[in-house]
Amino acid sequence: MTADEKYMRVAIGEAQVAFDAGEIPVGAVVVLKNRIIGRGHNLTETLKDVTAHAEMIALTAAFNFLGAKYLPEATLYVTLEPCSMCAGALYWSKIGRIVFGAADAKHGYSAFYKQSPFHPKTKVEQGLLQEDCLALLQSFFQQLR
Amino acid sequence: MTADEKYMRVAIGEAQVAFDAGEIPVGAVVVLKNRIIGRGHNLTETLKDVTAHAEMIALTAAFNFLGAKYLPEATLYVTLEPCSMCAGALYWSKIGRIVFGAADAKHGYSAFYKQSPFHPKTKVEQGLLQEDCLALLQSFFQQLR
Repeated sequence: MTADEKYMRVAIGEAQVAFDAGEIPVGAVVVLKNRIIGRGHNLTETLKDVTAHAEMIALTAAFNFLGAKYLPEATLYVTLEPCSMCAGALYWSKIGRIVFGAADAKHGYSAFYKQSPFHPKTKVEQGLLQEDCLALLQSFFQQLR
Repeated sequence: MTADEKYMRVAIGEAQVAFDAGEIPVGAVVVLKNRIIGRGHNLTETLKDVTAHAEMIALTAAFNFLGAKYLPEATLYVTLEPCSMCAGALYWSKIGRIVFGAADAKHGYSAFYKQSPFHPKTKVEQGLLQEDCLALLQSFFQQLR
């Protein structure tokens, strides 16, 4: 297992926690120098707050851990393509790298932005463990029907 | 003074609190049926958290006050054009109306989005008391030089 796979598995674990709480299962972790410095899962229903996305919670946790508001050396792993809000937050964070699993054709940032919304130095990769990321989302939406 | 002006003056008051704390002076309030249900000012430096924009704080306060995650009957007043992150949050909130003061050519949402980022039912107005909103920002950036 690569380091990227390992951290995406942690993000999937966070998504599972969201799933178990009846939340749309999305999870995220922020990693700096092989250390997890922030993690989060979707809590919009629990908190009744649409800003409580996995990425926002993981970013704030990372800022708090470091006492710094920029993350140029860090990587965010997230199971689903960030929405436009989370993409905006990632822009401000100047995060070094973003790795996401499943694409989100409806609410993913790429449907909304004219061009890359991220800082020019931010690298973006997609598709890591996407089947596992998607499986959790699919079984969540299936059980709703 | 119209009701809109009154609430924008409260938002400017929030921006002044940010100014006094050494923060870029932006303030926001959320109003529902002539009652302020959330307010906030920029706290990115104080909290070392780039997600701590005035709008995000005011929205979360409003969600917490109501115990509800949608704000279709509410109006957000904010002194500066929302950035792409805050525009995304406002989209998710389904807020009824957004009134902002000064435009932000560099970081305002309109520079980034292909089309309106908001919910189709959200009304947007700009320019209310924009001179006052801008004056605070200008004196902040002047004192930095």
